[in-house]
Amino acid sequence: MPLIQVSMFAGRTAEQKRAFAQALTEAAVRTIGATPDSVDIIFTDVERGDWATAGRLWSDPPPAPVPRPEP
Amino acid sequence: MPLIQVSMFAGRTAEQKRAFAQALTEAAVRTIGATPDSVDIIFTDVERGDWATAGRLWSDPPPAPVPRPEP
Amino acid sequence: MPLIQVSMFAGRTAEQKRAFAQALTEAAVRTIGATPDSVDIIFTDVERGDWATAGRLWSDPPPAPVPRPEP
Amino acid sequence: MPLIQVSMFAGRTAEQKRAFAQALTEAAVRTIGATPDSVDIIFTDVERGDWATAGRLWSDPPPAPVPRPEP
Amino acid sequence: MPLIQVSMFAGRTAEQKRAFAQALTEAAVRTIGATPDSVDIIFTDVERGDWATAGRLWSDPPPAPVPRPEP
Amino acid sequence: MPLIQVSMFAGRTAEQKRAFAQALTEAAVRTIGATPDSVDIIFTDVERGDWATAGRLWSDPPPAPVPRPEP
Repeated sequence: MPLIQVSMFAGRTAEQKRAFAQALTEAAVRTIGATPDSVDIIFTDVERGDWATAGRLWSDPPPAPVPRPEP
Repeated sequence: MPLIQVSMFAGRTAEQKRAFAQALTEAAVRTIGATPDSVDIIFTDVERGDWATAGRLWSDPPPAPVPRPEP
Repeated sequence: MPLIQVSMFAGRTAEQKRAFAQALTEAAVRTIGATPDSVDIIFTDVERGDWATAGRLWSDPPPAPVPRPEP
Repeated sequence: MPLIQVSMFAGRTAEQKRAFAQALTEAAVRTIGATPDSVDIIFTDVERGDWATAGRLWSDPPPAPVPRPEP
Repeated sequence: MPLIQVSMFAGRTAEQKRAFAQALTEAAVRTIGATPDSVDIIFTDVERGDWATAGRLWSDPPPAPVPRPEP
Repeated sequence: MPLIQVSMFAGRTAEQKRAFAQALTEAAVRTIGATPDSVDIIFTDVERGDWATAGRLWSDPPPAPVPRPEP
């Protein structure tokens, strides 16, 4: 209380997760009055081939820009 | 908006996930009026030893059928 | 298998959810070979005051555009 | 990227959620290098009758302390 | 550790949730050696209009059986 | 119905998961009247470096106790 479940691209280091966990916990303590002990955080690493936005997997190249007709 | 989180058995190819992501996005666009850019999809592969139905892990063999008495 | 959990803004009608559920199920059947019976979908309505992007709740007005200096 | 899903007891005000969303976003920007636009947050209010720890619903009173025998 | 998130149809009483929470906690203690204090459970009530199986919302009537041709 | 999603530290054996799945299913059958077939369970293994409580990753050593001043 709160429980914070974070999905993010794989590749963060242990040091980054450590700092992120501390910062998320401090955010909960400062803004909603949670006690530090009550803050649970679970990180889930997601591969780019498992996340899609606008129908495109993040492991795939972005669509080429539409060429403008020459003047 | 929407966020679509899909849990499914591991083993799908990148090509299947690519097609699935496109089809899910089109479903959201066509039926609830989402814009494509607003559709986020996260796939989670689940091993058969991590999914249970009716108390049985999918990695375990199904129960043998109850033999019918001979007539 | 698959389990599809959808978070979206509250306000969709039953008819929209019905059509969305059918479309998501068909997407799973067509692209990953799921059987219809195996597709479970759970919709979660999220109020705009419970979703934030870029640190801003969707219930809050977007920031005013930065005025460009006059030429 | 990241997606931050927060479950917490119901009762926080819009102002608290606004501040929490900002603080979570800043935490992601500062510690894992996320861009603000990429941070999505979904809050889920949980009633005390829907959360249990150690087998006890938070809507129920804590167990009475075991009385110590008199000396 | 473990965190148990349960989605089920709305309508269970507080008494049922209380008993369910106790039973889930005991299951974790007995089978994976969790300490009771470490077991967190969150219940989510889902309306029948928000859950679909085989493309059909549970708030909708099941399809009529296909009539067999008369002999 | 119900859907039970369990997050726990990695390291449980298949035998423990099998027993846990059976016990969770029996808990649902006994306390909320679910039919066994309707109980779906998904286990998610979480590494200790991906779970934090009170701002500390479980892969990190607990803080040293504060030394008491000598009398």
